[in-house]
Amino acid sequence: MLSVYEQLAAEGYLAGTTGSGTTVACTLPAVAPAPEQPATAAEPRGQQRLSWQGERLAASPFPVFEAATPLRTFRANQPDLHAFPVAIWHKLQLRCSKATDPKAMGYGEAAGLRSLRQAIADHLRYSQRIVCRTEQVMILGSAQQGLDLCARLLLDPGDSVLVEDPGYPGASHVFGLTGAKVIGMPVDHYGMKTEPALPVTPDMRLAYVTAAHQSPLGGVMPIERRLALLAWAEACNATIIEDDYDSEYRFKGTPLSALKSLDQGERVIYMGTFSKLLYPSLRLAYLVVPDGLVDAFASAISLTCRHVSRFQQEVLSLFIAEGHFARHLRHMRLLYGERAEIFQQACQAHLQGLVSVPPITTGLDATAFLPERANDLEVANLLGNQGIEARPLSFYRVKQMPAPGLVLGFSAFDGDAIRAGVAAMGQALERCLK
Amino acid sequence: MLSVYEQLAAEGYLAGTTGSGTTVACTLPAVAPAPEQPATAAEPRGQQRLSWQGERLAASPFPVFEAATPLRTFRANQPDLHAFPVAIWHKLQLRCSKATDPKAMGYGEAAGLRSLRQAIADHLRYSQRIVCRTEQVMILGSAQQGLDLCARLLLDPGDSVLVEDPGYPGASHVFGLTGAKVIGMPVDHYGMKTEPALPVTPDMRLAYVTAAHQSPLGGVMPIERRLALLAWAEACNATIIEDDYDSEYRFKGTPLSALKSLDQGERVIYMGTFSKLLYPSLRLAYLVVPDGLVDAFASAISLTCRHVSRFQQEVLSLFIAEGHFARHLRHMRLLYGERAEIFQQACQAHLQGLVSVPPITTGLDATAFLPERANDLEVANLLGNQGIEARPLSFYRVKQMPAPGLVLGFSAFDGDAIRAGVAAMGQALERCLK
Repeated sequence: MLSVYEQLAAEGYLAGTTGSGTTVACTLPAVAPAPEQPATAAEPRGQQRLSWQGERLAASPFPVFEAATPLRTFRANQPDLHAFPVAIWHKLQLRCSKATDPKAMGYGEAAGLRSLRQAIADHLRYSQRIVCRTEQVMILGSAQQGLDLCARLLLDPGDSVLVEDPGYPGASHVFGLTGAKVIGMPVDHYGMKTEPALPVTPDMRLAYVTAAHQSPLGGVMPIERRLALLAWAEACNATIIEDDYDSEYRFKGTPLSALKSLDQGERVIYMGTFSKLLYPSLRLAYLVVPDGLVDAFASAISLTCRHVSRFQQEVLSLFIAEGHFARHLRHMRLLYGERAEIFQQACQAHLQGLVSVPPITTGLDATAFLPERANDLEVANLLGNQGIEARPLSFYRVKQMPAPGLVLGFSAFDGDAIRAGVAAMGQALERCLK
Repeated sequence: MLSVYEQLAAEGYLAGTTGSGTTVACTLPAVAPAPEQPATAAEPRGQQRLSWQGERLAASPFPVFEAATPLRTFRANQPDLHAFPVAIWHKLQLRCSKATDPKAMGYGEAAGLRSLRQAIADHLRYSQRIVCRTEQVMILGSAQQGLDLCARLLLDPGDSVLVEDPGYPGASHVFGLTGAKVIGMPVDHYGMKTEPALPVTPDMRLAYVTAAHQSPLGGVMPIERRLALLAWAEACNATIIEDDYDSEYRFKGTPLSALKSLDQGERVIYMGTFSKLLYPSLRLAYLVVPDGLVDAFASAISLTCRHVSRFQQEVLSLFIAEGHFARHLRHMRLLYGERAEIFQQACQAHLQGLVSVPPITTGLDATAFLPERANDLEVANLLGNQGIEARPLSFYRVKQMPAPGLVLGFSAFDGDAIRAGVAAMGQALERCLK
């Protein structure tokens, strides 16, 4: 979900070379001001005038060009693409390609290939304790598309949507396109705070949470908060989007069940993506939607894109059904767990007194907190000048400025690279924090 | 673009078995009523309440499940999938799959793979006389996605958009999602009428035309109308979407240049799809956008889907660059041209006095006009009961009821099937038109 930011970094958004320290602040994805009516005449842009929504679509927080710069420590949200089982994938592609048949070349089902939806439903049953019907699984090209569909189907101008603050900018930006009010809720080390009580007002329609691994602070939402969130949704007749972008990579503690698995009232839309679990350019993601929304989502997909390209859906359905997916996840969980361990040890050795790194239990990245008065954007820029990528926590701000900190990706680098990177970071931080 | 309708037919939308003659009329894609403010509270749907836009997204004119019924004469907009060069495609897939590299597995460029965009730009230069930069080509998953992006970027609630009446329902439906006023303009055998003058009012923002092969009446827009349309766009500061879904299959007359090739003022967005030219489940389409809109489109793609899956883009770029695409088009143009000829001869032999079929010059389908007082929906239903698929012209109505007629696809059927189908249709029409 988040690996876009390393591209921002790579493109100089976060690592300006000459006093461009405010670049990021200027381009922070503004939450739409939620006008009563989204019809403000926009300024002409070249010859064409963009719509109110168009002006906001034209200000994506994502980079539109691929980062051409090579991967550097500690670019965040990077799966290790060298560890992907390309030989197996190639065999499956070959098999699917050979079997190409005119019957498979016409229009498919809007919600996606049955075999893939079935494979995902089967996988979720044991990995997330989600019990759902095949029909509830909607195949999409990306998590962004899922967020966009949820927003368009559920949000009217003036409605309210709760998001985590700090939180994932790609979500709040897309919600803002509808003219809805995007309300940032405070986050601590256990995810979105539900105490004091979440606001129950008639305009509440949606909440967006990364319950299994809060982005960016890394917290896991405990059961009490999950239940409080579900009760809030019942009270408001609202829907919860549970964005699970990397919880499969949980190294420590008991495996978690999804918030969706607690959902008695059809309140939760569960969202998963293969960008981190497999590779980003595959462009496959999915939603598990409540029964009452299946038809609406299928229709919306049909109208706005017809359906996702078939071939890669076929390959992925075989990859899951034949056990390669589960095996790959086990392998990567071990690999990333080892790297998390190496990263933490290196931080203890080199970053004592400079930053504090809470224990890493899940995912591809660590959160490192800076001394209270540090400016994390400046620190990230300075590190960038030293060849080290770091994403400032302030990048995830919705409204409230978070504690200064850095998001550091360890997952795509081997032990030597991690140790060397942390040592270099220690030296750079020594200089800049003194 | 249109081959969805045969699925509607296949699913019984057009061929109800028992007195369901009004089914289509009821499910005709309503043009949104263009409220001043799209915030009408919708009725609860199950537990979740959909937004104003959501209610319209949930009423897609496309079927959400693939037609399971076998292909029958004369299902419209069907490329002949048995004639696709699967062996060459397979070889290219194999080559791309073998070359999979971690560098190609990360996030790509929002607007699409450079090599594919270049290949398309090169192709358009000779096939459509469109001269554009690679950067202006935006790769998408479908024409529907292209229409949706254009609508969201350019239309505010209350803006006006001109569409052809009769015309493609997938376009008017998507435009209506924005709350814009969708205004149907009369169409004759030369496409959208520009005389008397097109309406020039301050709210005009967009026009949608199928200039090369009007959908559904089949007309080719002459140069005078093209220039009038461009002048209208200049006068209104509006944009024209030129939807070219099958003009590569022009059997007779001089090859046409695109409306876009006349565009001096950056007024035209040209849209192409590979659904008819190659096969629908590939899910690749593109826009050529004016320079002034390149950044806005790339950003909008990035925000709403990041980018299209890479693998099939690679395969297609090789398919075009190595000449297979041009060769395939030549082959199919001959094949479809022969079938059009056979179809016309069969109509002369069997349908004299029942329907009139204007000469077929382009595309996959013919328009057959019924006697003035016939009800084309009833006729299509009766034919459906006889195992013959036909799509009524009234299905394409925006506001004005068109002359009664049928859209009949000849492209996916060999000579014997066409002759047998037309003969059977003649018998059925004899009975129902007497």
